[in-house]
Amino acid sequence: MSLSNVSIDGARLLADLHRLRQFGTYKTGVHRPTYSKVDMAARNWIADRMREAGLKPEIDGIGNVIGRGEGEGPRMLLGSHSETQNHAGWLDGALGVMYGLEVARALGRGVDVVSWADEEGHYAAFPGSRSFIGELDDAEIAVARNRYDDKLLSDALTDAGLAGKQRALVEPGRYRGYLEAHIEQGDDLEQHGLRIGVVASIVGIWQFRLSFEGVQNHAGTTRMAIRRDAGLALAKLVVEIDRRFPAVAGPRSVWTVGRISLAPGAASIIPGGAEMLFQFRDADPGILERMEAELQAIVAEANGTCAVALAAISRGVPKLMDPAIQDALSRAAERFAPGLHQRMPSGAGHDAQLLAKVMPAGMLFVPSIGGISHHWSEDTSEADIVLGCQVMAAAVADLLAAN
Amino acid sequence: MSLSNVSIDGARLLADLHRLRQFGTYKTGVHRPTYSKVDMAARNWIADRMREAGLKPEIDGIGNVIGRGEGEGPRMLLGSHSETQNHAGWLDGALGVMYGLEVARALGRGVDVVSWADEEGHYAAFPGSRSFIGELDDAEIAVARNRYDDKLLSDALTDAGLAGKQRALVEPGRYRGYLEAHIEQGDDLEQHGLRIGVVASIVGIWQFRLSFEGVQNHAGTTRMAIRRDAGLALAKLVVEIDRRFPAVAGPRSVWTVGRISLAPGAASIIPGGAEMLFQFRDADPGILERMEAELQAIVAEANGTCAVALAAISRGVPKLMDPAIQDALSRAAERFAPGLHQRMPSGAGHDAQLLAKVMPAGMLFVPSIGGISHHWSEDTSEADIVLGCQVMAAAVADLLAAN
Repeated sequence: MSLSNVSIDGARLLADLHRLRQFGTYKTGVHRPTYSKVDMAARNWIADRMREAGLKPEIDGIGNVIGRGEGEGPRMLLGSHSETQNHAGWLDGALGVMYGLEVARALGRGVDVVSWADEEGHYAAFPGSRSFIGELDDAEIAVARNRYDDKLLSDALTDAGLAGKQRALVEPGRYRGYLEAHIEQGDDLEQHGLRIGVVASIVGIWQFRLSFEGVQNHAGTTRMAIRRDAGLALAKLVVEIDRRFPAVAGPRSVWTVGRISLAPGAASIIPGGAEMLFQFRDADPGILERMEAELQAIVAEANGTCAVALAAISRGVPKLMDPAIQDALSRAAERFAPGLHQRMPSGAGHDAQLLAKVMPAGMLFVPSIGGISHHWSEDTSEADIVLGCQVMAAAVADLLAAN
Repeated sequence: MSLSNVSIDGARLLADLHRLRQFGTYKTGVHRPTYSKVDMAARNWIADRMREAGLKPEIDGIGNVIGRGEGEGPRMLLGSHSETQNHAGWLDGALGVMYGLEVARALGRGVDVVSWADEEGHYAAFPGSRSFIGELDDAEIAVARNRYDDKLLSDALTDAGLAGKQRALVEPGRYRGYLEAHIEQGDDLEQHGLRIGVVASIVGIWQFRLSFEGVQNHAGTTRMAIRRDAGLALAKLVVEIDRRFPAVAGPRSVWTVGRISLAPGAASIIPGGAEMLFQFRDADPGILERMEAELQAIVAEANGTCAVALAAISRGVPKLMDPAIQDALSRAAERFAPGLHQRMPSGAGHDAQLLAKVMPAGMLFVPSIGGISHHWSEDTSEADIVLGCQVMAAAVADLLAAN
């Protein structure tokens, strides 16, 4: 078979995606948190599929599932992640892993497949791909905790049977590049009637924890005048961000308060403590810096009745995707969906931004129906699922055939 | 012994309070949630103390501990509750129960003692005292759940060994009245250098749940312009209440947002749902109605990008305390702390407001250091603890001696 005429098996791809969906089914979506029983069962199932496809699978010490092919010659690494956000969608992550598997089967050689661990960040930011490129040390693993239930990552690894296993490291020179397919998660392709997105850059995500310290007291006996209500201070700051950020943000910037908690959180107790998670994103480092400066100004002005502490959790650097991979994807997209593709930034972070540090990396998007993701109703049409995989296979064949 | 010269044993009272404090010690406070193992152990310990004091104790089907004396003649019911808020203070509730026990011991007759179940509302609003006055039906018990962990009240009663036990009902005509001592929980006595508060009225507490429905989506891929962020809508409403309530509230009104939760509550997901608990309090029904009207107006105006639903949880009626009991308390306070007492409202709800429906009821306050309560650092000086009990004993003797 000539690589340039590679053809994927759409029915086989869809059947595997639907089988993977059964690990942790929740309504029409999936609940498959990292290192849960159902996540580990899915990883073992993926390893079995890799073996069937002629790859040699390994589940490493951080939970990455890596299927390596034998033989010489040029090689690409394809994949994504297989755990999900809580009560979320069936395609986020799973799509890219199954695309990798199907492309490996369709090409028969030159493709390794990976499912990274915990891209969704239940325990840490991209621990799987960071481990693979050598940017995750044991000290971080020792202290990381689940952001929902506070479980130690080290305990989770033990419970998942991964304690003591070696963590796989990238083998220098093995790959021509890394390619990850993903649902768009926004509505840009759909709004413009397009079917394929070729990712040009991945935004930087800057995340912060804001903590408010007031005085806990009785909600009936404490006069309004002497209250130091941490929850009220938090609400005021959320509204102030909403009022002031549009003036400093760029046209594609986004910002979100995703979590709020009050302590102790009872109807009849004035909250003595409050905490929120805040993040913003842009592909332009200058705009990211402008947004942080504004956040710091807002926090400084808010410090009064309650003390407000701002702690940076992460400041991700925006990452450009490899131009040659972008070109290969665009050519393949034009062949199978003429005029129905575009270059675009990724507003979401992906493992590809870590892989881009050690090899050429690229990403392919397929449309999200209604732009919905991180929710059980997330979906993509079967025609778009099959088309995206065909485009990816052709692009990979193209990249492997290049001199 | 003449009733009018009754003298309590301060050392014995303090020793019992410190022993009770050991059931669920948390820092210098107590964590003793209703029907927990430690709460039931404390209730059994209280029953044993009642028996030692010559009372016949019963732990009824809702967890009320009632110690009844034998013999004829006038009789008062004294008590409070023995469970605590989560990680809260050692005196809230416990003080009034131990005062009742000590006064029963000091007088030797004419006093029944009670520890009501769940005044702190882990499962329901005042289920213990409502059960005693016949205002709690089995249907409510069947559906009530723990507000923190969602456990069914019926399961909690089973686990506590109370399932199937009869619930005690007030015996008409048995009591001249009900008297409950409590820490003030505010800083009014301390601010004015006073040592005893005679409660004139208990405020009404109106509680509401506000639910916001937006659209859950990805925090990186969803443009700001199309977001329907339930968390942001909630924060705006909290700030609007803070801005507008002072104009409709009375001089002693208080209002509090005690709990906020976002769904799903992750850093990278725009909240599709949000919920808050809101309450306000006043002793004047007209002011309570004015505040609810303003809340409804704010909610109606807020309905827009996100749908806001307002549900009333409870609307408590303000309760006047019995004038004769107030007078007896004031006389006793003047005798043991001349000039260092005042009449005052209770900003907190208490079981006394339920007992007031079926018999004359009164309350006595002792100072809270720094006005702190519902927190482990809650405290009252030993001198004030002993003085309050002595005042209560004298007032009860006075009330029992009256024709």
